[in-house]
Amino acid sequence: MTGVFDDPIFAGLFGDPEVAAHLTPEAEIAAMIRFEVALAIVEARLGIIPSEAGDAIAAALPGVAVEPADLAAGTRSAGVPVPALVAALREAAGAPHGAFIHWGATSQDVWDTGFVLRLVPILGILERRLVALVGRLGDAARTHARLPMAGRTRSQVATPTTLGLRIAGWVAPLGRCLDRLAEMRSRVLAVQLGGASGNLSILGARAPEAMDLLADELGLARVAKPWGTERDGLVELSNWLAMVSGLLARMAGDLVILGRTEIGELFAGEGGGSSTMPQKANPVLPEALIALGRFNAGQAGVMAGTLFHLEDRDGTAWMTEWSVLPQMLVATGAGLAHANELAASLRPCAERMAATMEVAGGAIHAEALAFALARAMPLPEAQAMLKRAARSQAQHGGSLRDHLSPLCAARGVEMPVTDATDAIDNAERLVERLLAGLAPSAGARDE
Amino acid sequence: MTGVFDDPIFAGLFGDPEVAAHLTPEAEIAAMIRFEVALAIVEARLGIIPSEAGDAIAAALPGVAVEPADLAAGTRSAGVPVPALVAALREAAGAPHGAFIHWGATSQDVWDTGFVLRLVPILGILERRLVALVGRLGDAARTHARLPMAGRTRSQVATPTTLGLRIAGWVAPLGRCLDRLAEMRSRVLAVQLGGASGNLSILGARAPEAMDLLADELGLARVAKPWGTERDGLVELSNWLAMVSGLLARMAGDLVILGRTEIGELFAGEGGGSSTMPQKANPVLPEALIALGRFNAGQAGVMAGTLFHLEDRDGTAWMTEWSVLPQMLVATGAGLAHANELAASLRPCAERMAATMEVAGGAIHAEALAFALARAMPLPEAQAMLKRAARSQAQHGGSLRDHLSPLCAARGVEMPVTDATDAIDNAERLVERLLAGLAPSAGARDE
Amino acid sequence: MTGVFDDPIFAGLFGDPEVAAHLTPEAEIAAMIRFEVALAIVEARLGIIPSEAGDAIAAALPGVAVEPADLAAGTRSAGVPVPALVAALREAAGAPHGAFIHWGATSQDVWDTGFVLRLVPILGILERRLVALVGRLGDAARTHARLPMAGRTRSQVATPTTLGLRIAGWVAPLGRCLDRLAEMRSRVLAVQLGGASGNLSILGARAPEAMDLLADELGLARVAKPWGTERDGLVELSNWLAMVSGLLARMAGDLVILGRTEIGELFAGEGGGSSTMPQKANPVLPEALIALGRFNAGQAGVMAGTLFHLEDRDGTAWMTEWSVLPQMLVATGAGLAHANELAASLRPCAERMAATMEVAGGAIHAEALAFALARAMPLPEAQAMLKRAARSQAQHGGSLRDHLSPLCAARGVEMPVTDATDAIDNAERLVERLLAGLAPSAGARDE
Amino acid sequence: MTGVFDDPIFAGLFGDPEVAAHLTPEAEIAAMIRFEVALAIVEARLGIIPSEAGDAIAAALPGVAVEPADLAAGTRSAGVPVPALVAALREAAGAPHGAFIHWGATSQDVWDTGFVLRLVPILGILERRLVALVGRLGDAARTHARLPMAGRTRSQVATPTTLGLRIAGWVAPLGRCLDRLAEMRSRVLAVQLGGASGNLSILGARAPEAMDLLADELGLARVAKPWGTERDGLVELSNWLAMVSGLLARMAGDLVILGRTEIGELFAGEGGGSSTMPQKANPVLPEALIALGRFNAGQAGVMAGTLFHLEDRDGTAWMTEWSVLPQMLVATGAGLAHANELAASLRPCAERMAATMEVAGGAIHAEALAFALARAMPLPEAQAMLKRAARSQAQHGGSLRDHLSPLCAARGVEMPVTDATDAIDNAERLVERLLAGLAPSAGARDE
Repeated sequence: MTGVFDDPIFAGLFGDPEVAAHLTPEAEIAAMIRFEVALAIVEARLGIIPSEAGDAIAAALPGVAVEPADLAAGTRSAGVPVPALVAALREAAGAPHGAFIHWGATSQDVWDTGFVLRLVPILGILERRLVALVGRLGDAARTHARLPMAGRTRSQVATPTTLGLRIAGWVAPLGRCLDRLAEMRSRVLAVQLGGASGNLSILGARAPEAMDLLADELGLARVAKPWGTERDGLVELSNWLAMVSGLLARMAGDLVILGRTEIGELFAGEGGGSSTMPQKANPVLPEALIALGRFNAGQAGVMAGTLFHLEDRDGTAWMTEWSVLPQMLVATGAGLAHANELAASLRPCAERMAATMEVAGGAIHAEALAFALARAMPLPEAQAMLKRAARSQAQHGGSLRDHLSPLCAARGVEMPVTDATDAIDNAERLVERLLAGLAPSAGARDE
Repeated sequence: MTGVFDDPIFAGLFGDPEVAAHLTPEAEIAAMIRFEVALAIVEARLGIIPSEAGDAIAAALPGVAVEPADLAAGTRSAGVPVPALVAALREAAGAPHGAFIHWGATSQDVWDTGFVLRLVPILGILERRLVALVGRLGDAARTHARLPMAGRTRSQVATPTTLGLRIAGWVAPLGRCLDRLAEMRSRVLAVQLGGASGNLSILGARAPEAMDLLADELGLARVAKPWGTERDGLVELSNWLAMVSGLLARMAGDLVILGRTEIGELFAGEGGGSSTMPQKANPVLPEALIALGRFNAGQAGVMAGTLFHLEDRDGTAWMTEWSVLPQMLVATGAGLAHANELAASLRPCAERMAATMEVAGGAIHAEALAFALARAMPLPEAQAMLKRAARSQAQHGGSLRDHLSPLCAARGVEMPVTDATDAIDNAERLVERLLAGLAPSAGARDE
Repeated sequence: MTGVFDDPIFAGLFGDPEVAAHLTPEAEIAAMIRFEVALAIVEARLGIIPSEAGDAIAAALPGVAVEPADLAAGTRSAGVPVPALVAALREAAGAPHGAFIHWGATSQDVWDTGFVLRLVPILGILERRLVALVGRLGDAARTHARLPMAGRTRSQVATPTTLGLRIAGWVAPLGRCLDRLAEMRSRVLAVQLGGASGNLSILGARAPEAMDLLADELGLARVAKPWGTERDGLVELSNWLAMVSGLLARMAGDLVILGRTEIGELFAGEGGGSSTMPQKANPVLPEALIALGRFNAGQAGVMAGTLFHLEDRDGTAWMTEWSVLPQMLVATGAGLAHANELAASLRPCAERMAATMEVAGGAIHAEALAFALARAMPLPEAQAMLKRAARSQAQHGGSLRDHLSPLCAARGVEMPVTDATDAIDNAERLVERLLAGLAPSAGARDE
Repeated sequence: MTGVFDDPIFAGLFGDPEVAAHLTPEAEIAAMIRFEVALAIVEARLGIIPSEAGDAIAAALPGVAVEPADLAAGTRSAGVPVPALVAALREAAGAPHGAFIHWGATSQDVWDTGFVLRLVPILGILERRLVALVGRLGDAARTHARLPMAGRTRSQVATPTTLGLRIAGWVAPLGRCLDRLAEMRSRVLAVQLGGASGNLSILGARAPEAMDLLADELGLARVAKPWGTERDGLVELSNWLAMVSGLLARMAGDLVILGRTEIGELFAGEGGGSSTMPQKANPVLPEALIALGRFNAGQAGVMAGTLFHLEDRDGTAWMTEWSVLPQMLVATGAGLAHANELAASLRPCAERMAATMEVAGGAIHAEALAFALARAMPLPEAQAMLKRAARSQAQHGGSLRDHLSPLCAARGVEMPVTDATDAIDNAERLVERLLAGLAPSAGARDE
């Protein structure tokens, strides 16, 4: 147990039992057995192996128990667990039918398709959580669509906006990730059956049919040719995992800032205690989301290197995938769980939001004041006047309006009246436009 | 000129003048001006600014010449070139209409939409080259669909295959990248118009309409809400660039191996000379493709970090994008150009291919021999017999058949006869299946 | 000009003319010529080439002008500029002596040693700026050693500390980077002379002597054997560049937070203006530092891959280095320049610092209060009491002391008195300990 | 068990029980307890806590058994296991002394110093294995110092060299990694004691003394100030781990090429079998080394991001470290074990090496022939003549000498005689120079 993803101490932060259940050695073995069973069924149906062999294998294999540790020596030696597993399965199925297990297939067919078979439920879990998150955040965006809050650009208070629009900005790209998931599904969840060098020579002319029937039997997408050397599907998956995790980290980053002691505008989840500071309520889950996002971004970089899959099978690129994909899936799952917990417990503080809009003397209204003044003078002059007022306010304190007023008087224009109504109205309009567009794609898949 | 992408010495390896033409400071300025013109036109049409202002701006701006260096001081100070550019444009357009330039917009609207406007032709160039490459490689796959060659898995000679099927393995994922490009287009080539904090408060109730008309005016995709803080589109683009480059690097990796002096089975492009070794014909373009693939993989990692775009504008994430995206585009363009040159000049050496199939005593036929023997005995026993023969061959030399023959005799089975026909036939079948599937999507976009 | 590092618009943010001067094509050519001159001198001295040839080459080459663009075709063809350059130099030097240029060397010797020759002044520039920065920040740490400020841990106000100690935390790792630079110097700034396959066969028995004399002639470190395939030195350099840039980004991150409108405790540099918000003073240079830090971290990842340098020269790994090292050097240089500008203009606001210490009802004093109470009860009980008081304060407002007071009364203990004296005293002690330790290493190298 | 580093199936490829023993939850807890004991001892000695409390804590804690799973809820809540652990330890130690556990410290002190305490034996393991590897490879370099082999540059046969010099090229950078380890040791293995905000306010004026005594008590390096926010030491460690792993991957890359079926010049370790190809002997351990090298390069990229450690403690950066450092240590350990196994079983095939030197008609001698002819004509002319001969040989087959001979005759010069003697002699000289230099640093630490 060398990493936080499996460490019981850190289970609540980095673990995801639901996803991890498909990544255990037992699940690995079960998926590979499922492949061998389906292959035997299909090959028997096509007359490639005797039909009694197909029946016997299909009957015997599901009940075979293989101890993970029993595959260790064979995996060390062969660099992949399949030869040892096939030997164990043939032994378990017994003569004469066992000999027809794995007929014409190669290790990569078993491992890769086995992995894809486990991806099916994992992507289901991730999608379900992502749909729920989009739904929850969408609701929150609507609820707070008119809750005024200081917009911040480049870390400075900018112009008025609303919490709902900020949240809508979290929702929109997550919604697009649902679209991306739908698009990539058939590229990722595809059967792999290629035989030794990818041309299924042992299966003869029935090879293409075997590929398609195997896909159907396993509920996977058919492919024109085996994809064993073409890892773009898995890299697309890994990019997607990193993108989802990165977007969750972004939401978390906003939560960390808005939940700072000096700001205190938005809270979510429970605050974490300290070993020495009694008052502390640390943003533990947002921090974890950011860590998970950075983790997955790094792993996606490792996966990018596996596109360079050489010749007809590249053990180095293949092993590299194994070293990072499982943790990426768990990290994404854990992140989505945390994010749902946070989305379900958003607690804005309208008073603190209102107070922030008054910091720096209400300089947040400078743009609106400039455009209001621009009814009476060219905009650049109005902007220059506001710049002067803002600089003066920054130096001497007081309100921006106090410093603008004498400048207006000197210029002979009326001091303009502005408020945040336009910002709030537009924020609501944009939130509604977004949610209207999400409805058909995400709303349909309710959890 | 601090990097190879702009260094005249390295122009032929790392440069791409066609793509780079859209990434010059002049092109940056032109695209931003195009944004300001379209914004004024749209705002005038909606009555947000006076219609004479709209006309005057649309007439004046296209002719304005702004020196890149003149924006340097303003960019240093503001962290973005837009304020200095807007000032220059207002000055150039003159009173009273110039004041209506950039009305209600913010720097990010100008820069981001300007960048997207330049992406349109760049993605066109990349797609055109990718379609051409898929076409060329598809032709080569068909041409060599039956050219026998040793399959290699995990760096070892495996079983027979054909060059055409190997090439088909290059084509398939590149074809999928064309699909991915089509899917992401509207997510990447979308208008950005948000105003100061993303709610377009200055434009009032007509803001959503302005967003849509601006998109139409510029030929970009409409969006439900401004995407200024949502960088998933650009990250998806960067993942795509890295994926294409990685897949080209993979093809290049195969070319480097097959073109080694000891192997000599496939050549492409011109070999590069040495400063001291007269015989050298180095695989320069494949090497460059691999370097470009690694480069873009690393840059995509930088881009992944920009998903963490905080609050309503994050200068740090934004500047980070600027530091890598232009080079990624050039690197991808250069790579596609090199790859087309290589694809157009593939020169297999059938003799060397045939010779390799005889190395290690023709051990490449071991799998076929085992399955042939499996007509007379259980497959595991046949495999064990072959393993013994192969080990004996490896120790004592000679041919695999020589070492298998006495084992067959001892067992009383006939020595089997095998050849590569099944492998070749299947390779051709799979190539044809792939090309049939590609036709509708890629074939339509001929260059 | 495809990237911000060369774009005149962005010169003030991403450019570094002093560093970049050593990375131009002209500088590349000059350094390679310097190598060829030194090689000829050394080989003539050792009798490997005629001494008149050595003299003639040394006399002729420094004046030869080679146009970068004239090397483009040769570089495209050979994958490295050296063959074309050597041909040009031999031509320029004329018969019969020109033929002795580049005697026994290979392209990599010329390019790699040429790069190292340019690293010498570049590392000098970077070191000088880093020493200056450590000095400036050290002064600032001492100046503000007792300026009270809220410590923040995990984004929450924690316990009192001082600005000086915070700054000392920026200084310490930068000081260690000076130590690392000293340690790595001889591993990075080492001569490369290996000939075709790294054994200098053409130079015969005098090869080792030639390596050493060439190192001496060029002022570089000697090496036991040619390092052409051993890129650990360059990767160490790249890790160092990324570490320095990352540490500057960390300082910048603190500056961005402390300079937020809602916090306003520390400013540095000039604030940047907006195209639409008159009040804005964006932290442009800190943002740029963070972008540069992220950029270099990503490039270091690319460089890490170049350790896998295969066989006796690996063109793919080599070209990969070229694609990132120059920008890394410029990015580090620009970052150090920005950081010095920021360090020279730190402007703390003691009032805002004091005000922050009162947010959340002065909860910052909770730890001190708990330990003060622990004189009268076990610490865990005191901590529990403070937790209750803090929770009550968070719910009902007011000061932490107000909520603690009744709990003390109920328990029959006196309400404790605490202040930040211990924190301030210790902060000063730690600052002084750090600066005392820095003095000998960094202080000596004044700029 | 979500990743190969803990998966029993893959234990022999990705696991390292010796290193992993220090990374279990039990080891985490034990190290944190060791910190708390040492802190109590030191604080009692300095009179910060009662001396009976110090004695009682030192007596009680080592025997306390804390179940990892019992810390899960507290870790989820606090984001770090320390508060729950301290509560458990205080409970176990009982009143009144237990209350003095963790006096004035903060969670980060416990976790970070606890991690460093576990790094001490881990770095010992890694160093021991690295010393052994340098020794083994050094021996092999000497043994094969004169074994002729084709040098290959840019994937093409270049000029003659020897296996020993190739191996020396693996040794040299690994030897420098031993130097780097020695240099970084005191920066990495340093005590962390900072208290809540890094100024140890609770310990008062004795704080610096407490830091130093704690370092001594735990056998760690003293530091001028707490390094809790300064993660350069851990990033330096991670860069070192990635560098070692990358250099092992490079050796492995050479082994994969030289062990290809078509080349067969060098073997190491046992070849791995296939599930369907009886003849296969796949280079499993070299492949694993390359995968581990890529893995660690990616993780180092994640670690680089943790330099951006904000304010006085940054939970996001801190958690990110946890997510990658343990696996990096195991990956490096496993890699060094594999590399030692390979280094101990290198089996060159001199016949195949000799055969390769004859491929392409012995074009490997082109450089030597050119320089031999250069005694009779200017080198450029000789090189041009060889180029012609090489091109002719490539087209028509036969030997290079056959094609050179008529050109010599036409020119009226004698056909030169060359052999690989100079290359072999120099290779041996360079191997000896390297080994001589290694002796003092690495040789001393024999295993």
